[in-house]
Amino acid sequence: MDEIEVRNLLEGIRKGSIDINSGVERLKMLPFDDINYAKIDFHRSLRNGFPEVIYCENKSAGQICEIAERMSLKGVNVLATRISRDKFGELKKQIVNAEYFSDSRVAVIKNREIIKTECKVCVVSAGTADIPVAEEAVITAEFFGNSVERVYDVGVAGIHRLFANIEKIRSCDVVIVVAGMEGALASVVGGLVESPVIAVPTSVGYGASFGGVSALLTMLNSCASGVTVVNIDNGFGAGYMAATITRAIARKRER
Amino acid sequence: MDEIEVRNLLEGIRKGSIDINSGVERLKMLPFDDINYAKIDFHRSLRNGFPEVIYCENKSAGQICEIAERMSLKGVNVLATRISRDKFGELKKQIVNAEYFSDSRVAVIKNREIIKTECKVCVVSAGTADIPVAEEAVITAEFFGNSVERVYDVGVAGIHRLFANIEKIRSCDVVIVVAGMEGALASVVGGLVESPVIAVPTSVGYGASFGGVSALLTMLNSCASGVTVVNIDNGFGAGYMAATITRAIARKRER
Amino acid sequence: MDEIEVRNLLEGIRKGSIDINSGVERLKMLPFDDINYAKIDFHRSLRNGFPEVIYCENKSAGQICEIAERMSLKGVNVLATRISRDKFGELKKQIVNAEYFSDSRVAVIKNREIIKTECKVCVVSAGTADIPVAEEAVITAEFFGNSVERVYDVGVAGIHRLFANIEKIRSCDVVIVVAGMEGALASVVGGLVESPVIAVPTSVGYGASFGGVSALLTMLNSCASGVTVVNIDNGFGAGYMAATITRAIARKRER
Amino acid sequence: MDEIEVRNLLEGIRKGSIDINSGVERLKMLPFDDINYAKIDFHRSLRNGFPEVIYCENKSAGQICEIAERMSLKGVNVLATRISRDKFGELKKQIVNAEYFSDSRVAVIKNREIIKTECKVCVVSAGTADIPVAEEAVITAEFFGNSVERVYDVGVAGIHRLFANIEKIRSCDVVIVVAGMEGALASVVGGLVESPVIAVPTSVGYGASFGGVSALLTMLNSCASGVTVVNIDNGFGAGYMAATITRAIARKRER
Amino acid sequence: MDEIEVRNLLEGIRKGSIDINSGVERLKMLPFDDINYAKIDFHRSLRNGFPEVIYCENKSAGQICEIAERMSLKGVNVLATRISRDKFGELKKQIVNAEYFSDSRVAVIKNREIIKTECKVCVVSAGTADIPVAEEAVITAEFFGNSVERVYDVGVAGIHRLFANIEKIRSCDVVIVVAGMEGALASVVGGLVESPVIAVPTSVGYGASFGGVSALLTMLNSCASGVTVVNIDNGFGAGYMAATITRAIARKRER
Amino acid sequence: MDEIEVRNLLEGIRKGSIDINSGVERLKMLPFDDINYAKIDFHRSLRNGFPEVIYCENKSAGQICEIAERMSLKGVNVLATRISRDKFGELKKQIVNAEYFSDSRVAVIKNREIIKTECKVCVVSAGTADIPVAEEAVITAEFFGNSVERVYDVGVAGIHRLFANIEKIRSCDVVIVVAGMEGALASVVGGLVESPVIAVPTSVGYGASFGGVSALLTMLNSCASGVTVVNIDNGFGAGYMAATITRAIARKRER
Amino acid sequence: MDEIEVRNLLEGIRKGSIDINSGVERLKMLPFDDINYAKIDFHRSLRNGFPEVIYCENKSAGQICEIAERMSLKGVNVLATRISRDKFGELKKQIVNAEYFSDSRVAVIKNREIIKTECKVCVVSAGTADIPVAEEAVITAEFFGNSVERVYDVGVAGIHRLFANIEKIRSCDVVIVVAGMEGALASVVGGLVESPVIAVPTSVGYGASFGGVSALLTMLNSCASGVTVVNIDNGFGAGYMAATITRAIARKRER
Amino acid sequence: MDEIEVRNLLEGIRKGSIDINSGVERLKMLPFDDINYAKIDFHRSLRNGFPEVIYCENKSAGQICEIAERMSLKGVNVLATRISRDKFGELKKQIVNAEYFSDSRVAVIKNREIIKTECKVCVVSAGTADIPVAEEAVITAEFFGNSVERVYDVGVAGIHRLFANIEKIRSCDVVIVVAGMEGALASVVGGLVESPVIAVPTSVGYGASFGGVSALLTMLNSCASGVTVVNIDNGFGAGYMAATITRAIARKRER
Repeated sequence: MDEIEVRNLLEGIRKGSIDINSGVERLKMLPFDDINYAKIDFHRSLRNGFPEVIYCENKSAGQICEIAERMSLKGVNVLATRISRDKFGELKKQIVNAEYFSDSRVAVIKNREIIKTECKVCVVSAGTADIPVAEEAVITAEFFGNSVERVYDVGVAGIHRLFANIEKIRSCDVVIVVAGMEGALASVVGGLVESPVIAVPTSVGYGASFGGVSALLTMLNSCASGVTVVNIDNGFGAGYMAATITRAIARKRER
Repeated sequence: MDEIEVRNLLEGIRKGSIDINSGVERLKMLPFDDINYAKIDFHRSLRNGFPEVIYCENKSAGQICEIAERMSLKGVNVLATRISRDKFGELKKQIVNAEYFSDSRVAVIKNREIIKTECKVCVVSAGTADIPVAEEAVITAEFFGNSVERVYDVGVAGIHRLFANIEKIRSCDVVIVVAGMEGALASVVGGLVESPVIAVPTSVGYGASFGGVSALLTMLNSCASGVTVVNIDNGFGAGYMAATITRAIARKRER
Repeated sequence: MDEIEVRNLLEGIRKGSIDINSGVERLKMLPFDDINYAKIDFHRSLRNGFPEVIYCENKSAGQICEIAERMSLKGVNVLATRISRDKFGELKKQIVNAEYFSDSRVAVIKNREIIKTECKVCVVSAGTADIPVAEEAVITAEFFGNSVERVYDVGVAGIHRLFANIEKIRSCDVVIVVAGMEGALASVVGGLVESPVIAVPTSVGYGASFGGVSALLTMLNSCASGVTVVNIDNGFGAGYMAATITRAIARKRER
Repeated sequence: MDEIEVRNLLEGIRKGSIDINSGVERLKMLPFDDINYAKIDFHRSLRNGFPEVIYCENKSAGQICEIAERMSLKGVNVLATRISRDKFGELKKQIVNAEYFSDSRVAVIKNREIIKTECKVCVVSAGTADIPVAEEAVITAEFFGNSVERVYDVGVAGIHRLFANIEKIRSCDVVIVVAGMEGALASVVGGLVESPVIAVPTSVGYGASFGGVSALLTMLNSCASGVTVVNIDNGFGAGYMAATITRAIARKRER
Repeated sequence: MDEIEVRNLLEGIRKGSIDINSGVERLKMLPFDDINYAKIDFHRSLRNGFPEVIYCENKSAGQICEIAERMSLKGVNVLATRISRDKFGELKKQIVNAEYFSDSRVAVIKNREIIKTECKVCVVSAGTADIPVAEEAVITAEFFGNSVERVYDVGVAGIHRLFANIEKIRSCDVVIVVAGMEGALASVVGGLVESPVIAVPTSVGYGASFGGVSALLTMLNSCASGVTVVNIDNGFGAGYMAATITRAIARKRER
Repeated sequence: MDEIEVRNLLEGIRKGSIDINSGVERLKMLPFDDINYAKIDFHRSLRNGFPEVIYCENKSAGQICEIAERMSLKGVNVLATRISRDKFGELKKQIVNAEYFSDSRVAVIKNREIIKTECKVCVVSAGTADIPVAEEAVITAEFFGNSVERVYDVGVAGIHRLFANIEKIRSCDVVIVVAGMEGALASVVGGLVESPVIAVPTSVGYGASFGGVSALLTMLNSCASGVTVVNIDNGFGAGYMAATITRAIARKRER
Repeated sequence: MDEIEVRNLLEGIRKGSIDINSGVERLKMLPFDDINYAKIDFHRSLRNGFPEVIYCENKSAGQICEIAERMSLKGVNVLATRISRDKFGELKKQIVNAEYFSDSRVAVIKNREIIKTECKVCVVSAGTADIPVAEEAVITAEFFGNSVERVYDVGVAGIHRLFANIEKIRSCDVVIVVAGMEGALASVVGGLVESPVIAVPTSVGYGASFGGVSALLTMLNSCASGVTVVNIDNGFGAGYMAATITRAIARKRER
Repeated sequence: MDEIEVRNLLEGIRKGSIDINSGVERLKMLPFDDINYAKIDFHRSLRNGFPEVIYCENKSAGQICEIAERMSLKGVNVLATRISRDKFGELKKQIVNAEYFSDSRVAVIKNREIIKTECKVCVVSAGTADIPVAEEAVITAEFFGNSVERVYDVGVAGIHRLFANIEKIRSCDVVIVVAGMEGALASVVGGLVESPVIAVPTSVGYGASFGGVSALLTMLNSCASGVTVVNIDNGFGAGYMAATITRAIARKRER
């Protein structure tokens, strides 16, 4: 039941073509009866033109294409994460303006101008092997209207590289730190900047890194304050959180 | 080596009293030579009057008192976390304006007016047993100048209580969700609000809750975007992260 | 917003005292506006006279007494789990008809006749050390109107004791199996009965029993079908699940 | 030793052709001597026509075919779980009325009319990736004579979708909740329905989901009562447990 | 149903006072009807005079005394493990010939001569802190009629001590190795002797010894063949297994 | 330094061609100087004709062939475990009397008559999927001269199958129980037999079986006495331990 | 900012072409402004001709080639670890003097004479399957100028092989022990030598070896003093640590 | 068999009072026959005057005193670790020159001058709560003759404090890094110094620090080379390893 139907119902009431008892009955069930209407009430992402996201890992090319087309028809921008090159090939056949970022396995469909937030996000990574996850964060943050600074390969084994870039990092509104192995970079950055720091453990490493668990624990136990953590390899989650923060900044400025 | 020494060095060069070779040598070692100078460059908390925090778990009453007095002498506000009632008793003898919050075992020493951020933080908790951790987050967020809304005891077993308060939660700039046992509340809230959500797993629970590990994993795997996680029972960390975000908002508005 | 308000709104529309636009607006926010209305829709436990449960582990004697009194005023029966003898002493002072079951640390306040389900629940335990958890399940199942058969100390190390009681177990509508150490009893019982089996791992054991994890894993991996599992030491949860099943049986018979 | 042999033995005793001492000896060893007889006493599945199940994961196509044929000869219905398309191809060659459900990798051989239970089971899933496990539960529950309602893709990140279907869920006798990632859906559903809830964690997720462990722990620690748990990805187990419960309902009604 | 009843039944059949049909019916249910009869068939410990064991950890002094008296009345020897000094005090009041071994917290009640096996068991321990567990194994092995050699404090950090005793160890029929910390001693002994080796990990250690898990894993992964493992700190289990092996030796010699 | 060299040294001493001081020096270092001599003192497997074992998992076909040939030249029997069909193909080309057991991936080279122990080992398995591990135990036990009884597919979900075979199991000198999933079979068997029981957890299972960890913990925590455990899937280890026990029996009889 | 720029700055000050205020400003930011200069201050590996290392696991052949060429241009020696044969093929095309060690998957590019340390490192391994990791340690230690003794296949199951080589091991300045399965070799060696022992757990093993965790825990809990541990399979790390120690020896001798 | 007996044997050979065959036999068994002789060959700590260590955790005051006295009689220095104040009180009564270091719960008995190594060890700690473990390392390193520099409270949250002390750290021959929580300090120091780094994880932290496991994993996965790890809280182990390294330096210089 969308707004038009509610309006029709109320007009039927006014005109007397619908009696009050059956109006009450229909309204009682309202938020449960109709998925489209319900979405308007409950869900945050239904404002006009707000971007949408498809997580592609367990979806077939067919499913992805269908969802992407339905979204594109609404005229919103679409971000597709963890999409393989093969599945993107299928998508590209249907939606010609789809773009692929192979490092991060992300696809973007721009159906309208991205509204800029005037905020800067810095994505810092420890090693070159962390770059795919870092790039997923970058594309996500940009997709939601942020400028992004990349500071890559500045792990703590050669900490001078970090210091050489510290002012660039400090100048950003939100900092994302992507690190595998022992994940110590998040603590060091957290001790050097004033902005909120989002730490992303990666599954890079071997032996007792346990697929990212070591870096995850390091980051959760960070002795530096102002550091929070997302799931292992979840570059998208970090980029989205950064976008949530810059949106909070933007909202406040508008008021 | 502070600014005056650098200036003296350069003036010595100009006047010819210091030759260029030994000037180069002294400058090479510069960032390691002097703690005061180093602090100015590296450390974020040395601007006048910025609040300071003491983590009291492994410190004696004597150590806490000494640190708190030294900080108070600088005229800054002091937050002491995880301080037992006994240790606070000792502190109170020395610093009469110290206040104790027994729910969260936090002490606050206000040596100057707290500067308000004009931002609101909402602290949501699942059960009554999570309140000590929630209150640590509340006091921390308030200490850094934020208004705080408390929405307690709204766990997912009785989800109508959450919905009854959803507009209050949505009206805040940052949301902190504190939950033990299975920690599902963070995902539900994350799906209902637009603001950044900081999830705090608590060690409340029994059996296979493993001292908070179950809630921690739930939160890290949250299917809702815009959720990040801090360490188990780390209410302070969540409150501090919220303050970091509202500070980012404030900084941006000033520009 | 309750039914009367909806009716008033529609009548206002009909009479023209409310215009259609503001009617649409008010209806959009409807499910979030009013806690009482929401409760009616969402919450299952608000039918008159249905029993209520208090989990006492992290609540003070004062909190428990207050909740118990408020519930008693509604005339419902009250079950208080994990209540220490000391806290029960406080409760008894206020509510004279409170009864204590010391084995299981459960208290019961009977404010009305318990409605019988005409179903039988069998609680089977492996060793004597598992009895506190088993008794929590027994009291819970009885509290919700079921007859309970106890078959204790029939662990698989002396499996003849189990067989000597198998017909008694088979005659029940639901079977709860409580076992620590290696927890193998649940699989054996699951292979011998047709009724649903609810397995409760207990923290009884030492060394590599890891506080109940060994028994929990055994039960989750049970090669017998028709076995489900609740949390370690969660006798209440098993008793409640049994009651949920017998209630489903009762509901169906009434139709 | 089957019934005929026991009868012969007793007739021998009566006729005097067997003396009492050797009769006692033979009877002492009775339940161990003969697998066929033993089965009658111990095993639940030997009533005529009751369905049988084959777990195919570690069996060869040849083994599966042989077991299925032997069962079919008895005229019972056969459910084969975790059977690959290839192995099903072999089976189909031998048993023409075998049906394949590719989503759930389940095969069904209907050798007689399925007896309906007049009960409804609802299978609720969080995401599209959980559907294979959910379908295994669906086919299993239907195979044992239940009607099944599917409510898919209603995870807590968009909780309005769940509420839009809540009455359908509430109308069922047993509810199965299938969820991966953080598994929070089970707690939310458990708080909204009166029926028994069987939770199935799935291995869907990444990073710290640890192949379903995160969802498993969430479900075990569920703050909602009336929730029990089966093994990770064990859709069959949940469907079978649901059938066990509806059979308990049916048995009770017959009396 | 004991032997007499079976005999009466058969005599009733012979005399015609019981008809064959009802005889068949009664015999069908036979192994489940009567605990005493069942015990004869199923349970191994009912031969006259065989020793019995009480695990005291979760039993009250009263329960222990009652069980011990009932056993003593049968004239069998009794071993009580994990019995505290306090509980033993109570036991001693009732049963004067009870003996206490404080190192291992074991009590022994000798009601008849222990029958010797003519076998030797060697108990080897790594450090002095492992001695309580080692002594539990010693007392258990002796209680079941074995001679025991003790070789203590021969951990691999000073491996010459082990070699100095190797012939004594090699001369025994079964070897028990008790070790905490890294538990390497079991592998070394396993590589040096021909007899079966039973390894007992102990919870001695700190840090990453994780309460015996490190030693347990070491022993399970032993590169030496002929090594099996019991639970952490389970000296009794090792002693009992040794006794089971020497009993097998004794049985074979008798034939 | 082999025996001849020692003899030469002593003869040199006698003849005076070597002085006593340098004799003492050379003898001090003796057990470390020469691998062949050392082996005679330390190693148990060098008596003539005793069988040898090759673990093939991380060895190339070439390495396996070389070792097998060297052993065969000594005229001893050879057991090769975890050898793939391909590697066996290579081995067969070189050593024509090599036999392959494909179920257990074991090869045997009989270079002399196997000496019988006159002992019986029973290998009991829970499910058909456990058979490869069970067969590894069977072949190993037979290789060391034991008769083996197989009792397969007697898991606790249908416990009557176990009882139908219990006398066969009880008649053996050592019992090996092989079980995956929840591993409960070991406890049940342990409670029914007098012989030593060696439990082998297998990696059969899914979800929370964690590759055999669940079965391993079940077996370690077995409430039945007289049960010890080997590593996951280590059928060879169990067979070897059984052989160690029967060898102990045989040695004792010879005396 | 490199040394030349600093020199130019100071000369500008002296000549008056740069005023003192802007000189102070530029120097303040100095260690962060320029990666080359920073490296001189912070980083240990920039002394002329010191060898460099490339970890190749997550790098493309193209990236490896580029880095290797850049390093070779500086005339330093290059060690590339975890480089596959394919990637090495690409490297060899570009850099003809590159050498490949296929056992350890290490490549070495010698651009100058390796300076000898006059120290000896002993690499001891438990089994043949540990050799790849052992060889990585060997090549690394040699690359940094050490002589290396190999003592392979001396695991504790046949401890005489270790003793036969003990004097060779004792004669070295640093000992590396490489072992999988239960990892007990490190403790035994640690108890026999005076030199520092670096233990490397390997992922060799099966079942409860958990990919090297069992060996890792054994080594961390070693009862022998003077043993430290590196990550699972980290032969390079052990070789590098050994080189660090021998470099410390060399430095001290030079003074 | 000590040297004298060997000498006597050889003289017997020479004189002909012992024939060669029986000489060969006696020599074959030599390393196992006599503990004193064996000790000389195998054990490293029996040279005169070398210090000895007592680990006191699981020893009674009486045991500690007896061992300490026996050692003191040999005139060697004694180090007693993990000794409580109470136990030290007992020790002090017997051995007046015993000294107690309460921070680290270590006692030292100096019976002769400590021989200086001319090496410096630096002990770096992250927080004040890590000091007890750090001090255990300090006292141990000093006890074995090293000079020690303390650099405490330089955790990565305020990394400027580390840099202010970096030259002091770099000037030492071995560096020990002690850190709890996330343990990142070891990686940072490892990237800044050339000396060998020994990392000690501590159990300081809360929530997901899991009693030191988080710091342990961080250190094992350190991206900096030249870092090795000892057990959690094992300050003694780190100090001893440092002493082993400086002893290796000293030995080399002597040659």
